[in-house]
Amino acid sequence: MAFSERVTRLKSSLIREILAAAQRPQVMSFAGGLPSEAMLPVLEWEDLPVAFGQYGMSEGEPALREALAAEARALGIDCQASQVLVVSGSQQTLDLAAKLHIDTGTEILLEGPTYLAALQIFQLFGADCLTIPQEHDGPDLLQLRARLEKHKPAFIYLIPTFQNPSAVCYSETKRAAIAALLDEFGVTLIEDEPYRELSYDGVNAIPIAGRLQRASWIYTGTVSKTLAPGLRVGYLIASPDLFPHLLKLKQSADLHTNRIGQWQALQWIGTEKYRQHLVQLRDFYRVRRDAFQQALERHFGELADWQVPQGGLFFWLTLKQPLDTRTLLAEALNRDVAFMPGEPFFAEPERNPGNLRLNFSHIAPERLDEGLKRLAAVIRHAQAAQAA
Amino acid sequence: MAFSERVTRLKSSLIREILAAAQRPQVMSFAGGLPSEAMLPVLEWEDLPVAFGQYGMSEGEPALREALAAEARALGIDCQASQVLVVSGSQQTLDLAAKLHIDTGTEILLEGPTYLAALQIFQLFGADCLTIPQEHDGPDLLQLRARLEKHKPAFIYLIPTFQNPSAVCYSETKRAAIAALLDEFGVTLIEDEPYRELSYDGVNAIPIAGRLQRASWIYTGTVSKTLAPGLRVGYLIASPDLFPHLLKLKQSADLHTNRIGQWQALQWIGTEKYRQHLVQLRDFYRVRRDAFQQALERHFGELADWQVPQGGLFFWLTLKQPLDTRTLLAEALNRDVAFMPGEPFFAEPERNPGNLRLNFSHIAPERLDEGLKRLAAVIRHAQAAQAA
Repeated sequence: MAFSERVTRLKSSLIREILAAAQRPQVMSFAGGLPSEAMLPVLEWEDLPVAFGQYGMSEGEPALREALAAEARALGIDCQASQVLVVSGSQQTLDLAAKLHIDTGTEILLEGPTYLAALQIFQLFGADCLTIPQEHDGPDLLQLRARLEKHKPAFIYLIPTFQNPSAVCYSETKRAAIAALLDEFGVTLIEDEPYRELSYDGVNAIPIAGRLQRASWIYTGTVSKTLAPGLRVGYLIASPDLFPHLLKLKQSADLHTNRIGQWQALQWIGTEKYRQHLVQLRDFYRVRRDAFQQALERHFGELADWQVPQGGLFFWLTLKQPLDTRTLLAEALNRDVAFMPGEPFFAEPERNPGNLRLNFSHIAPERLDEGLKRLAAVIRHAQAAQAA
Repeated sequence: MAFSERVTRLKSSLIREILAAAQRPQVMSFAGGLPSEAMLPVLEWEDLPVAFGQYGMSEGEPALREALAAEARALGIDCQASQVLVVSGSQQTLDLAAKLHIDTGTEILLEGPTYLAALQIFQLFGADCLTIPQEHDGPDLLQLRARLEKHKPAFIYLIPTFQNPSAVCYSETKRAAIAALLDEFGVTLIEDEPYRELSYDGVNAIPIAGRLQRASWIYTGTVSKTLAPGLRVGYLIASPDLFPHLLKLKQSADLHTNRIGQWQALQWIGTEKYRQHLVQLRDFYRVRRDAFQQALERHFGELADWQVPQGGLFFWLTLKQPLDTRTLLAEALNRDVAFMPGEPFFAEPERNPGNLRLNFSHIAPERLDEGLKRLAAVIRHAQAAQAA
């Protein structure tokens, strides 16, 4: 068999295996990152023009690009519709950015922890992943500066707003400082914001891309967390020096994003109906977050530390008595509980044991308490065995 | 700027530029490969379940995979639903196959001419493209054997049924011989069949993938030419040794194909409604092909040679007096006519001058004669200038 060298880096996806196991209906799953089905809006299709069945532009639908640019400008990103590329979910932004920037051995900067699927695709393309530790309010600035002084990374990949998995939202101070550092060192920013609209306590900080003066940037978002992931409609907005390359890479990847999903997204983005839907969504998830926090206090108060997430879909627990949480999975699934071990979210899993990512958006409220109780029991049992 | 080495191979897309120029409403375009808007079916959406808004499986919708496997078995491909991967248009198959097989310098085999976007993405990943000349009934078998004896290509990429751009449909003899050669030399086949259903004279040959005994294979198709390209729903079917890698690559590229398009495709594939639609489609395009042939005879009889295509969307003209047809483009567009020069469809454009690809499916019938008349005049004028 004649495979490429990159295929040797194609890992068996732990997420895939956990999610497959979590499909069993009796499993109480904290593992995925699924929106609640209860909050999927009913989509109206009767006005979809027949002409949307035809091939479209690789850039995306012009009206949707205009609407997305207007939304981004309202967030503080100085951009035009000509900088907007509609993509097949924001996961595709990572594929295009990897193609644009990464050769085997190319150094890039990431938060530790970072989004697992980003880590996987950057490693697939052969990136050398340098990590900046995450603090409660964003990356460690001293370590970021030290990295920038010693290395010339192709880009830095950041999730500043309700990060997956850590739920961290960067402070104003760190956003400003990071923008200044990237300008100073001329390092391209890739800013991933799938969770921005899922803000439960009023946080609404200006993106880092909106604070840059000179550095190149790609800002990416999606309708997957707010509207319907099944549409596979995301977008990137890029500085003018990067856009033409990303457009050609998009065209070679899949010609263009499906137009029916784009049309549907356009029925919502920027409308009063969408604003009302987002209010309902935040109210719904805030209630789930608060109930999760209470259940966590009951069952994990002595086992772990965590911040209450101000947005997003996850709690990130740090065990007071660390162990490799991947070793807990089999027993948890035996007890019909699924969760995401924290280690795979780090470029160096072995050096970062003892975290769990728990999704609070998808589990049925009546199963929450039992699920966390069982998971805590699995951890206590493993820690007792380890101590023995 | 820190770009990857591959970006230096990201060509400015001639197709993009021609199609952009062809957007002007007064332009008579033979350049694209668009289905006729008149044949886009009205899509019904009222029964789409809300649950299709949720994330889906990377493999695709189970029922659609079953339906596609059944269709493929009916064509003569021995396969199960577990070998079917739904992709975001069959262009994505090329991206996934490139990732699976191509490192910088990897040798691959292609027809000359071949599908332009395939050539571009394989070259983007750094492939060394070896060409097998196309004859009227398929690739030159002696040259294929010679290539296989001297080289160990990662795969061979073929479009055996109504090829884009040459319109060639491989004979039964060549299909059988190619399958035997690939088995003998153990070379992976990528068989691309977007045009299979657009068969106007009854041709219905068994795919080469269905004739292999030992070699690995990827067979890919789409609903873009029969139903609606705007859905961006295609599929690949792969031998079991390749499938798990392709699945992981799909997941890292865009998680999964949009589910609304998949649901819509499922309303058609394998149904009586779809069979009737295909009959109408063939009738419609057959009329257009025949009218095109008559107009070509009027205006190009002395200028070029061609085969009447038995399927697909294109005529492939070979000028009796060759010149680089790219040099004709500016003047053609000046006269409001667009076409695709043949040179870019070859890995070595400079060595293959003198072909034109003309799309017959999309131009309005009342503008056909005038368009071909003007194009013929542009060619005569250039040839006269060359001779002078």
